[in-house]
Amino acid sequence: MSDVIALAKNLINRQSVTPEDAGCQELIKEYLDAAGFNNETLMFEDTTNLWSRRGIDGPVFCFAGHTDVVPSGPEEAWQTPPFVATEKEGYLFGRGAADMKGSLAAMLIATRKFVNHHPDHRGSIAFLITSDEEGPFINGTTRVIDTLEARNEKITWCVVGEPSSTSRVGDIVKNGRRGSLTGDLVIKGVQGHVAYPHLAKNPIHDATPALAELANTHWDDGNSFFPPTSFQISNMHAGTGAGNVIPGECHVCFNFRFSTQVTDKELIKRVTTILDQHNLNYEIKWTFNGQPFLTDSGKLLEATQFAIADVTGVPTQLSTAGGTSDGRFIAPTGAEVIEIGPVNATIHKVDECVKMEDLNILSEIYYSMLVRLLA
Amino acid sequence: MSDVIALAKNLINRQSVTPEDAGCQELIKEYLDAAGFNNETLMFEDTTNLWSRRGIDGPVFCFAGHTDVVPSGPEEAWQTPPFVATEKEGYLFGRGAADMKGSLAAMLIATRKFVNHHPDHRGSIAFLITSDEEGPFINGTTRVIDTLEARNEKITWCVVGEPSSTSRVGDIVKNGRRGSLTGDLVIKGVQGHVAYPHLAKNPIHDATPALAELANTHWDDGNSFFPPTSFQISNMHAGTGAGNVIPGECHVCFNFRFSTQVTDKELIKRVTTILDQHNLNYEIKWTFNGQPFLTDSGKLLEATQFAIADVTGVPTQLSTAGGTSDGRFIAPTGAEVIEIGPVNATIHKVDECVKMEDLNILSEIYYSMLVRLLA
Repeated sequence: MSDVIALAKNLINRQSVTPEDAGCQELIKEYLDAAGFNNETLMFEDTTNLWSRRGIDGPVFCFAGHTDVVPSGPEEAWQTPPFVATEKEGYLFGRGAADMKGSLAAMLIATRKFVNHHPDHRGSIAFLITSDEEGPFINGTTRVIDTLEARNEKITWCVVGEPSSTSRVGDIVKNGRRGSLTGDLVIKGVQGHVAYPHLAKNPIHDATPALAELANTHWDDGNSFFPPTSFQISNMHAGTGAGNVIPGECHVCFNFRFSTQVTDKELIKRVTTILDQHNLNYEIKWTFNGQPFLTDSGKLLEATQFAIADVTGVPTQLSTAGGTSDGRFIAPTGAEVIEIGPVNATIHKVDECVKMEDLNILSEIYYSMLVRLLA
Repeated sequence: MSDVIALAKNLINRQSVTPEDAGCQELIKEYLDAAGFNNETLMFEDTTNLWSRRGIDGPVFCFAGHTDVVPSGPEEAWQTPPFVATEKEGYLFGRGAADMKGSLAAMLIATRKFVNHHPDHRGSIAFLITSDEEGPFINGTTRVIDTLEARNEKITWCVVGEPSSTSRVGDIVKNGRRGSLTGDLVIKGVQGHVAYPHLAKNPIHDATPALAELANTHWDDGNSFFPPTSFQISNMHAGTGAGNVIPGECHVCFNFRFSTQVTDKELIKRVTTILDQHNLNYEIKWTFNGQPFLTDSGKLLEATQFAIADVTGVPTQLSTAGGTSDGRFIAPTGAEVIEIGPVNATIHKVDECVKMEDLNILSEIYYSMLVRLLA
């Protein structure tokens, strides 16, 4: 068994459902301590975070990841116990195997090897680890970044270990993510009896033309890295249940996934303009989940593409698709951010697993990147 | 105390919440029996109905009404016990005082007086009484009418005792009612993650332009008796509650209140055409609650207007506003149908009441109508 697999199993066996860390970071600290890192545990409320750094100069190469996992769901639905790492037919099964304890193991073993071979590497190597990536992401990476920013400590290149690959490790690299903005809209009318519509004001009738216009609006064209910005209504609720009552309010929840061609402020302004043009009586609450980010060039992207080609020979595609990641908190500091990790086919599902050979390959990719950037 | 008030109190004291009759019709039958009527009790399921007739020839003048009442709601909210008829400052309080045990008393006393003065009146007088007007109206008037139709027994003129008046008894006469048609619509999409809209199909986005068109459609102009047909969405529900999920279905419930310028079949066809033009994948269930009806002229309307002017001197307005009534089941047989009853300000509310003098006036109006049509 490789060191990567042994460490991955040791991490998977710890039941670290968000925001629990369950001792994962203590284990990680042992490895980093032995490799000459300075460890700094940053507790924020219920969340355990680790900032660990080897070296004091720039550039700073940072591995970012999380020790927390999503719940297992019904354990009896699993073929193997979710919190007992189990090898089977070349795969390692267990919650977090792919998202992302396998990546953490690959990063740590790659780092140990690199430090052994290049004890006097240039710049610094760092680890930014949280136990709140799968949860509300309030006390995790974002607060560590606030702490670093407050003392002007900068990350140059950040490699996030999120499972980016789809069929072979390295086939997809995420070089950005869309932004996310949520609106909770209440359109106000006047409740009444359907037989007396002149005494009421139907908020569904008021809302539908505006919602149709929002759904039909072309927000941008995207760009070569991002698909066009998308607007989706996720929830709409109005009515008392009675068939003869005109409701007094209509509740609508919608979400933008947006490209780097627009900002959250522009989207808010455009939505507000459309709602106002329809003369709606409304209240709206905005929840901003993150700006889009993009690493469209630079040494980190080059090193990633080189390392994947070098180790695997697999052709790599750049992508900004999918949900959000903690990269959104790191990129705004000016860091180049790339996400490269194992195949994501089973993440968040029962029987989460990762091909063991892929974790060894991933560790070699990480090692190759370190060599190219810091040797 | 007048005979009308005494009888109204006797009826109110019986707790006849739909479909209970609580002996009201037995009391009514005593009065009608004494006046030479032939009583026929028609039980359908849980509903007690009475068809009572004096005479065998046409024309048939029929009083229609119901002995059932809506529930009292919280009794402690009432100033007087809801099922103990109580006189207070010229008003009679109790559930059913206005809707419509007061009218039943006025009809019966008017009829007794008319039969005493005109024992050999022309045509027939009839009573059609149900205990299922405030409920599902399945086993009430509609089934009595089916029974009469099956034996080709026709009503010429029908006076429904529903509380039609607004501030003075006789100020409003209902000479028709709008039709009612309900649609339960499910628009089908494909559920998915808001981050991957190309893999989903948002049924709210599909629905809103069609619903906006339906809400904005001019269905007809109404006519001199009916306001334009109105379309109202009463309920709209879509979404799992999660902000990052595109829902798979969107549920919409809407209702038409329609004039005599359109039919239910025309409305269904026009809605279907609009839904189809928007290329929606949908299912729809229609519930037809009744055709509109109208008595825009004829001897009954003349007699009603004459009687009100004669007894009260109050100017009368014709109206077809408001909800549905059992008149919708009677009018399609070819009968002229008019609704005239007491002031409706307190119906279905706590502290339901009626001005006692109004019940005496109402009884005189009914008497005057009988004289004009059958003396």
